[in-house]
Amino acid sequence: MKILLVGASGTIGSNIYDRLQIDHEIIRAGRNGADVQVDITDESSIRDMYERIGNVDAVINASGSAGFASLTELTPDKNETAINSKLKGQMNLVLLGIPYINDGGSFTLTSGVMMDDPIPKGSSAAMANGAIRSFVTSAAVEMPRDIRINSVSPGLLEESASRIGHFFRGFIPVPGKKVAVAYQKSVEGAQTGQSYEVYE
Amino acid sequence: MKILLVGASGTIGSNIYDRLQIDHEIIRAGRNGADVQVDITDESSIRDMYERIGNVDAVINASGSAGFASLTELTPDKNETAINSKLKGQMNLVLLGIPYINDGGSFTLTSGVMMDDPIPKGSSAAMANGAIRSFVTSAAVEMPRDIRINSVSPGLLEESASRIGHFFRGFIPVPGKKVAVAYQKSVEGAQTGQSYEVYE
Repeated sequence: MKILLVGASGTIGSNIYDRLQIDHEIIRAGRNGADVQVDITDESSIRDMYERIGNVDAVINASGSAGFASLTELTPDKNETAINSKLKGQMNLVLLGIPYINDGGSFTLTSGVMMDDPIPKGSSAAMANGAIRSFVTSAAVEMPRDIRINSVSPGLLEESASRIGHFFRGFIPVPGKKVAVAYQKSVEGAQTGQSYEVYE
Repeated sequence: MKILLVGASGTIGSNIYDRLQIDHEIIRAGRNGADVQVDITDESSIRDMYERIGNVDAVINASGSAGFASLTELTPDKNETAINSKLKGQMNLVLLGIPYINDGGSFTLTSGVMMDDPIPKGSSAAMANGAIRSFVTSAAVEMPRDIRINSVSPGLLEESASRIGHFFRGFIPVPGKKVAVAYQKSVEGAQTGQSYEVYE
């Protein structure tokens, strides 16, 4: 398959790349993408990317950020990072990408554990994660041409534990390699509308 | 209790009003609110409302809209209604409202059945509903001064069936009076971080 991987150089993205590049042709995209540059917070950048690369069998997104702030310090303004990046960025990859996906292809988006297992300072990210899971559930029933859509909700990654583990007290880190398997199931399997939760 | 009810004149809001006005003092807010006007898509309008009414024991939001469009016709632009109203409008009622809630008070937001039981043309609304549910789960663990927060996810209301029932084929309508009871549980009960799903 020809797979567009957005966020290919990140912690999750590089694990997905390592696993899927054995059997597939991967186009690595991101802000400093090895193959194509894209800023998912910018609709025109997404449109440009799809026009440049043309049709693919699968789009995987492993990018998207959200601000961390305690609830009482979370202003509407600070909430915009999650809205524009993790939420709208991911949704727009789908809304603008459907015409570029081959029949029977797939989208795989990324949510995250804090929507189910909340942490301090995580409410903006939780909001975006929950939005993505429910969008995927709903979009799956309307996808044209047998296109499928799923999301993966990773727990705290082992590779990220030294950097952001202090936000996730008492969480058991998950190997990035294990999280990458869920993306493989989404792309190579036959399911749609699923949220693959890889929490331990 | 002194309760601010946003969206008081809507189908759900009027059922909540009828049930809670027996035991509580209700301030009815909305675009054409009987007591106070507010546009939840406008931060400054929310700020003005809280400044005018001062402290309350509970805020219930039963307002918020989302665009209905098939997935292939859902543009990033059409998605903005749900983002600005049902999602950010409700979140901002919380983020800007915390200082005005008395100790031990509560917020109750509104999501909706299509996040769990998807319908055609419902993916934008599903996104906002899922965002609200997960925000509530997460915000609950960080609320100051024993303030609680829950959301209610109503099914298709009996009162709305003649107007929007064609979107919800095969759904069993729920009486508005039954949905109102979930808001009562949120306000008068002791639970927090819950999603009360009233689907039949």
